[in-house]
Parts: sequence; structure tokens; C-alpha cells
Amino acid sequence: MTERVLTGDRVTGKLHLGHYVGSLQNRVHLQEEYESFVFLADVQALTTHFEQKDLIRSHIREMTLDYLSAGIDPEKSTIFIQSMIPEIAELTIYFSMFVSVNSLRHNPTIKAEAKGRGLDELYYGFLGYPVSQAADITFCKATIIPVGDDQLPHLELARRIVRRFNELYQPILVEPQALISNTPRLVGTDGNAKMSKSLGNAIALDSTAEDIAYKIKRAVTDPARVHKSDPGHPEICPIYAYHGAFRPEHLPEIREGCERGTMGCSACKERITMALEQLIAPMRERRAYYAARPQLVDDILITGTKHAQGIAKETMKEVREAMKLDYFSPSAM
Amino acid sequence: MTERVLTGDRVTGKLHLGHYVGSLQNRVHLQEEYESFVFLADVQALTTHFEQKDLIRSHIREMTLDYLSAGIDPEKSTIFIQSMIPEIAELTIYFSMFVSVNSLRHNPTIKAEAKGRGLDELYYGFLGYPVSQAADITFCKATIIPVGDDQLPHLELARRIVRRFNELYQPILVEPQALISNTPRLVGTDGNAKMSKSLGNAIALDSTAEDIAYKIKRAVTDPARVHKSDPGHPEICPIYAYHGAFRPEHLPEIREGCERGTMGCSACKERITMALEQLIAPMRERRAYYAARPQLVDDILITGTKHAQGIAKETMKEVREAMKLDYFSPSAM
Ligand code: SF4
Ligand code: SF4
Repeated sequence: MTERVLTGDRVTGKLHLGHYVGSLQNRVHLQEEYESFVFLADVQALTTHFEQKDLIRSHIREMTLDYLSAGIDPEKSTIFIQSMIPEIAELTIYFSMFVSVNSLRHNPTIKAEAKGRGLDELYYGFLGYPVSQAADITFCKATIIPVGDDQLPHLELARRIVRRFNELYQPILVEPQALISNTPRLVGTDGNAKMSKSLGNAIALDSTAEDIAYKIKRAVTDPARVHKSDPGHPEICPIYAYHGAFRPEHLPEIREGCERGTMGCSACKERITMALEQLIAPMRERRAYYAARPQLVDDILITGTKHAQGIAKETMKEVREAMKLDYFSPSAM
Repeated sequence: MTERVLTGDRVTGKLHLGHYVGSLQNRVHLQEEYESFVFLADVQALTTHFEQKDLIRSHIREMTLDYLSAGIDPEKSTIFIQSMIPEIAELTIYFSMFVSVNSLRHNPTIKAEAKGRGLDELYYGFLGYPVSQAADITFCKATIIPVGDDQLPHLELARRIVRRFNELYQPILVEPQALISNTPRLVGTDGNAKMSKSLGNAIALDSTAEDIAYKIKRAVTDPARVHKSDPGHPEICPIYAYHGAFRPEHLPEIREGCERGTMGCSACKERITMALEQLIAPMRERRAYYAARPQLVDDILITGTKHAQGIAKETMKEVREAMKLDYFSPSAM
């Protein structure tokens, strides 16, 4: 069987270097090896952003540009839109018949949310999003799901749902395997553990050279380093983390220069600025190419979505047969 | 605007006289006056019967025969199958984003169930079935929903969901009105308050004349009446209730004969047996007609379902527009 890898992002904002390091980079490699599906999770975005309908709409094409510019190749990856696959909704409904509220509320993400607000105050759809994720994974029979450690419980629930379905009906769904990524989170330019657009500490994938230089210039460093000769503590400095993420081969040299006080923060920042510019410049070029061709971007989305729709129809046909909900011959309908 | 009435039944068993009195009879009248939709709720049946896939399948056509034999006229009513309208699943997912767990657990049906087993032990799909019902109602823009008093809270939640959707997005969904039916529940032949197939106290709509006679013969009566001359208490007797439901014009005479001890239980039972046979005989004929023409029954289901599918597509198009999820022109897809 061909391995099929599925990844996706909630359509709630532009992608940034944190996404690149945490997953996009990995996807660009995976598409060389596996059949690859990448989806724009607009329905999942609704679980938290149902009141902001313009936000999702405006980000669908932006995020597609992010994908294309980061190197996701529409010839190698099927890019599709979640809401355009009604079979995901159907599978969610079918799965929800045999998933207990209990198993959902013990999911760590739900648990954390319920802790703050109480289970009662959660929205029903939010409570059920792991069920929805199981539907995302199974409609296309994905075999490999790249996940961080924190998402393992979701995948475990999806695996349990698949096993239960296969046992209740027919063994037609594929139990996905986790591909655990060990990429650490990229710190924000303000030193916050997480780079995030809403915190204003992110470097967007569509940054200009000036944006990059400005963000790095304003980034916090070890406050102990006032003069170049002050010995620094690179492990508390986001710039050092960026060297580690984007030019790891130079890490020993950076550490030495910082700790010994032989390299100033400006020089250190200049180097990472150059490295980031080298990384982002080709992305910027690809983005400009696609941004100038909105019809091409739409065609990529439409082609990918149609491909996913075809697979969804096949899976749903099997699901209906397994559940004995195939009352008529398909030709009759 | 044309009024559109929607009714349906969970596909979990054959229909009986309790269903006839409680709703089928009413639907037969309503189809003369309104545009009428009747659906086979197989997905809703799964909320409690997901492990019994053969049960649902085997009842789909049986229940359609029940409908047709009871007088639901496929020329006047659109009969369709719930699972064949994926838009119901999609709407359920969209509604579930803004319905709180709280509002669901305070629904009396869920509350009663949660009381016995704990909210945690409920299945996620069961907890959400009022959301699903709201989707059933709204996909076809039903304006009138015949309900018993006990179902009013469900309809009220559906109305709230419609208002919330219309307020969040665009006012495109129709808030349904309740048509409260005052028909009391039909007691079982064993005196149980509810006629129910699983209790074995029901008279099925496909009963033969012998079935009817046998069931009535074995039905309990007032135990105080040993001899014909013993005065009876009709209000505790199911046979009296049947007279009330099927030949109310004779009720005073039955009461008198029973209370004064001038009519024996056998004579009383004979009269209701005849009345029921008169009611069921034409149903039996219609059933025989359709049962001999399985392709016609399938055609009725297929035609009705296709009609409902067309309406579902239109509604979903409006929903996507309202939610701004209509990313491409329909012709592009
Ligand atoms: S030299 Fe580099 S690693 Fe050290 S504190 Fe300055 S910016 Fe950070
Ligand atoms: S006479 Fe009729 S109503 Fe009275 S107890 Fe007998 S069966 Fe019941």
C-alpha cells in the first residue's frame, strides 16, 4: 500500500517561521517520499472562530500562497479545502454515535479548556473536534500523520475510533500511524516560548527583507550583554534559538562568540538576518509568482479539492456498504 | 410562502396503531393542506442502534410500506431517507459550533438519560441529537413541525439555533412553528401506558384480521368484571381507550354498557375488533399492492430522496454564501 500523509492547518491566520520549522519544512520533505495531502481546515477554524466569517474567507487564499511559497508543490501534494468535503461531516456524525462524552472530555486539549470554563460552557462542536479530526484522517485513508507530542492523544483517539468502526462494521478504515516530529517550538522574537501572530512576535513567511531585518533588530537578546565584551547566555536568547533552527552548523561558533564576549549582538543578529533572508527570498519569489496568478491558485485549490472529493466519495461508498446504509444501487441515484 | 410540514420516524421497528393515532393519521390530513415531507430517520436511529446495522436496513422498506399503507400518498408527500442527505450532516456540524453543551444537557430527554447514566457516559452523537434535528428541519426549510408536548423543548432549541444562525450570518433559515398535537398516547393491550413493539402490546399496521382479533382477545380489561353483570370501570380498560380513539361516537354507549353491566367484555371487544379491522383492511390492501411492487417502492423512495436532495443543495448553497464559505463560483467545481 502506498503511504499517504495528511497534514493541515486551521485557517485562522498567516503562516510564519514557527509553522515552517514545526511542520511546513517537514511536509516539503515528506511530499518527495509519500503521497501527500494538505488541507485548509476551515471547518475546524469555525470551532473557535464561528463569529469571524470574513477572517476565514480572507485567509483561504493567503494560506494557500503560504503553502506554495514554502515549497509545497501542487504536483506532489493534494491541497484541498475541508468544508468542501461533505463526507467529513458525514463521517463525523457516524463516528459520534459510538464515542462517549467521557472519552472526549479526557482529551487533554478539551480538558484544559473545560478546566477554565467548565465542560458545560464548551460548544458542542468544540467538544467533538477530535471526532472531526478522525473523520479528516479516515475519509482519505491517511496512513501517516505527522504530529507533535502534544497532539498524540488526539491521534490515539482517532486510532481508537477507526478500530471501533472496523470492529462494529467492516474493516475498511485505515488506522493511521503517528510520525512524531521532534522539532521544538520556535520561540518568539520577544522571548515568548511560542511564535504567534497574535503576540506580534512572529516572522511571517511573506516578510520582506526589511521586515526580517526589523524584526530581528527589535528581538530581545540576553539582557546581560550591554557591551560586546559582556559574556552572554545564549540559551536564554531567541536569536541563538534561530541560529539553532536555521543554521545549526554554526551553533558552536555563535555560542563561543556570545559566551566569550568576542561577538556583539548586532553581528550575531546580522548573521541570522542574512540566513533568514536566504531562506525567505525564494519563498518570496514563489509567492510573487502565484500572487500574480490568482486563477492558477484557484485552479490548484479546485484540482486538489476535486481529487479529495473523488477519494471521499469512494470511502463513503465503502462506509455505507459496511454500515448497510447502501439501500440502492449507485446507478439508481 | 407555502407552508411545509416535516415529520419523520426513527427506523427502529414496524409502525403500529400507536403511531397511527399519534401521528400518521394526522400526516394523512396534513398532506392535503400543506407541502409535506416525511423522512425515514436512519441516522437518528443510529444514535441508539449503531450496533444493529441489519435492523435499520431491514426496516427501511418495511417502514415505507407502513407509510404507504397508512395513506401517506407519494403524490402529496415527499418520502426521503435521512442518511442520503449529506447536507444534514454538514448543517449539524455548522450548528454545533455555536450550541453549548449546557443547552444540550438541559434538554429534558438528554437530562433524563444523563440522570440514569451520567453525562459522561452518553455518546457524543446522542448528546447532540437536538442539533441534528435542527438540521433535519432547516435543510428543507420546514415551517410546521407537528409535535407532542414532550418534544416542544427540542423544537424550541431548533428555533433558537435558527435564530442564532440567522443573526450570526444571514437570515436565510426558516424558524419552524410547532403544531401541537393533543392526541393522547395509545395504551398497550396489556394496559401499559404506551403501545410499543418491544413490549409486545402493540397492534401492528400490517396485522391480519386474525392478528387483530387475537390481540384484542388477549387484551386486559377491568379485572373487576368476572360476570357480564359485574359493573366495570372503563377508564382503566385499554379496550375503552381504543373505542375512544377509533370510534369515539360510540363512547357513551360503551361506557353505559360497561358501567351498568349490560354488555360483556367479549361483546365490547368484538365491536372494537370490527372497527380496527375496518380501519386496517384498506391499509392491508394498499400494503399488498406495494409489497408486490418492490421496484415501485424503491422508485418512491428514490424520487422523494432526490427531491429532498435538490432542496438540500439549494439550502446549502445559501448557507455557504451566508457563512462566506463559497470560495469558488459553482460552475468552477
Ligand atoms: S550574541 Fe547572539 S546569542 Fe548572544 S545574546 Fe547576543 S544575539 Fe543572543
Ligand atoms: S366492557 Fe369493554 S370497556 Fe368495560 S371492561 Fe369490558 S372490555 Fe373494558
